[in-house]
Amino acid sequence: MLVVAQKIVSKAEGRLVDLATIEPSARAVALAADVGKDPRLVEVVLSESVRVVRARRGVLIVEHRLGFIMANAGVDQSNVGPPDGSQRVLLLPENPDRSAQALRRGLAALTGIDIAVVINDSFGRPWRQGTAGVAIGAAGLPALIDLRGQPDLFGRRLEFTIIGFADEIAAAASLLMGQADEALPAVLIRGLRWSAPESTAASIVRSPNEDLFR
Amino acid sequence: MLVVAQKIVSKAEGRLVDLATIEPSARAVALAADVGKDPRLVEVVLSESVRVVRARRGVLIVEHRLGFIMANAGVDQSNVGPPDGSQRVLLLPENPDRSAQALRRGLAALTGIDIAVVINDSFGRPWRQGTAGVAIGAAGLPALIDLRGQPDLFGRRLEFTIIGFADEIAAAASLLMGQADEALPAVLIRGLRWSAPESTAASIVRSPNEDLFR
Repeated sequence: MLVVAQKIVSKAEGRLVDLATIEPSARAVALAADVGKDPRLVEVVLSESVRVVRARRGVLIVEHRLGFIMANAGVDQSNVGPPDGSQRVLLLPENPDRSAQALRRGLAALTGIDIAVVINDSFGRPWRQGTAGVAIGAAGLPALIDLRGQPDLFGRRLEFTIIGFADEIAAAASLLMGQADEALPAVLIRGLRWSAPESTAASIVRSPNEDLFR
Repeated sequence: MLVVAQKIVSKAEGRLVDLATIEPSARAVALAADVGKDPRLVEVVLSESVRVVRARRGVLIVEHRLGFIMANAGVDQSNVGPPDGSQRVLLLPENPDRSAQALRRGLAALTGIDIAVVINDSFGRPWRQGTAGVAIGAAGLPALIDLRGQPDLFGRRLEFTIIGFADEIAAAASLLMGQADEALPAVLIRGLRWSAPESTAASIVRSPNEDLFR
């Protein structure tokens, strides 16, 4: 299992935008004033989003076009590149599940090894401080493991449990990657086993009609 | 670093309740009808909660008296014990940070080893399907690592980043513990380093005035 940071996947895919090239819309200018952010950054965030979920001073939480509810649509200025006078920001990969699949196939072609791939990012959460690693792309593994109907240790049938398998993998790798100047954008995990069918990170997104917090 | 499952800590602390001994209040009976759960179970959930956050058929999300927003106040019927005709449920430890501290001190006294302790549980999340391990108790480690002001790889100052360190540790351990019949209630993590000050799992809870999703 290879866990790869969103940031290097986005860079490899050329998902950089120079804010100097952005002309903010009236909507972005107004929203930027509300949240206290650069209107050009807000314009880029909106271009990656389908909906603003919460906007407060310093906070802009949106529904990303991929379905993820996240701050700033994942548009990020940290660890983008050396200071060179430009104001570049980095977007999420266009289709992180496809990126994970491509990486998985590429590694198989180069090495003959069948290896699962997770692309991770760090998301803030409601109710709890601090970010935690989550999977935004997955290939070759179950993103979720549905245990409903399985027995517990004492034979009692589990009623509700679905494991956020890829997210827990992403969090584990995130512990090692760090967020500052660790320069460790890929983590190899050995020895993890599973038997559930493969699924994508897109399948993790809870459908709006099942979601009580939109 | 030792990660211990909430379930064995709760059992060790005798946090079992037999539903046969519970007389549900009128409020519990009404709420139980709304959510389609056993009124006695709902009574126990309410007794562990300060507020109902969402109630829908099959779903009861509350603010636990410890501040955690979680399903059923953590009151659980899986892996509680062998079938014996009783209807026992298990509550969270009374004070999981204190439990973690006691375990840490006990291990130090028994072995002379200075070891950090995390008590983990699996929580559902808004917006994303599947549960992920989180820390409900912590001792001897930073529950959060505040990176604000630290440099990124290219010297740019990080503006917002606080890492949910104990939650990521809990998620990593949860991967190995499983949720069904794995019977692996403790995980030893070696080689993880940190330099931030110690803090408790209680400190992870976002204060209501900073929380946009209550």
